[in-house]
Amino acid sequence: MMWPLTKMDDYLKENLKEQRYIHTLGVKDTAVSLASFYGEDAKKAEIAGLLHDCAKNLKNEELLNMALVSGFNVDLVSRSEPQLLHGLCGAIIAEKVMGVSDKYILDSIIYHTTGRENMTKLDKIIYLADYIEPNRNFQGVDFLRNLSYIDLDKAMLYAYDNTIKYVITKGKLIHMETIRGRNYILQRIR
Amino acid sequence: MMWPLTKMDDYLKENLKEQRYIHTLGVKDTAVSLASFYGEDAKKAEIAGLLHDCAKNLKNEELLNMALVSGFNVDLVSRSEPQLLHGLCGAIIAEKVMGVSDKYILDSIIYHTTGRENMTKLDKIIYLADYIEPNRNFQGVDFLRNLSYIDLDKAMLYAYDNTIKYVITKGKLIHMETIRGRNYILQRIR
Repeated sequence: MMWPLTKMDDYLKENLKEQRYIHTLGVKDTAVSLASFYGEDAKKAEIAGLLHDCAKNLKNEELLNMALVSGFNVDLVSRSEPQLLHGLCGAIIAEKVMGVSDKYILDSIIYHTTGRENMTKLDKIIYLADYIEPNRNFQGVDFLRNLSYIDLDKAMLYAYDNTIKYVITKGKLIHMETIRGRNYILQRIR
Repeated sequence: MMWPLTKMDDYLKENLKEQRYIHTLGVKDTAVSLASFYGEDAKKAEIAGLLHDCAKNLKNEELLNMALVSGFNVDLVSRSEPQLLHGLCGAIIAEKVMGVSDKYILDSIIYHTTGRENMTKLDKIIYLADYIEPNRNFQGVDFLRNLSYIDLDKAMLYAYDNTIKYVITKGKLIHMETIRGRNYILQRIR
């Protein structure tokens, strides 16, 4: 049985730092808005938006352990930077603890940080909602907010490119799935 | 029997546009200089530098055909942007036409555009010589010229990052090998 949303909300209030919780509500609202705009299931978007960062409080070791114990193959980049696993672990918690069984919702939680090839519409909505929710503030955010309501794919390409440049600036490893997803969407746009 | 360098030079004069030929001589000289500085075989660097762009005159279709006919698996990104194959095809011409049999030289020609994981010292020298030869002019080139004589790995990371940002700006596909090579060198530096 899936938890009611109020219980999920209590879990997040208890487990996330205040700023992260506020961000989460922003992502939820933005995901619902994008879903309504693009004819996607708003209820699924609400659940995915609410839960996308539910593993964000876990430490690197906990993320790595949870992924391995749950039987996932952890790629080399994620082994070096386990925070990349907070999407996967969020989906594990959503499924095993909160009873979310919808694969469409779980996938959008898994891939909200790295992206992937051939993203579903909900994947894109959660990825972008995470990027443009009202508390986000970076150069280009208003452009991306507008673009997200004009063309989901072009907005995804902009977001991917922005992420890759940001990761380079930070001197971090680039996840291979991000490049695959970015190349895929670029070829789709072409 | 390997062609004498004068015959290779004649081939390049005949097959490359003048600007490309001038660039080639710049790469050759820079490669020899870096090789001497880093205790690498200067003769191999000279041959690799001279031949690195010997397939640059080929059209997309010719590059793709040459790679496939020679039995290579062509990845999806290179199928879309066959100019990425000019390194591979350069090595094929160097081997089959000019009689270069040294795998170390051939590899450095193959990977001079995309890079790869675990590059050899000669790979790095040719990749960087191509980037910093005297005719190159882009923001940061002087910084990279200096860095290339201080730390080959840090120079490679800078060059990779610069390439990835440039490819994004141009709206082109990012080659997976470039990301693998970039992540590899970043972890090596760490």
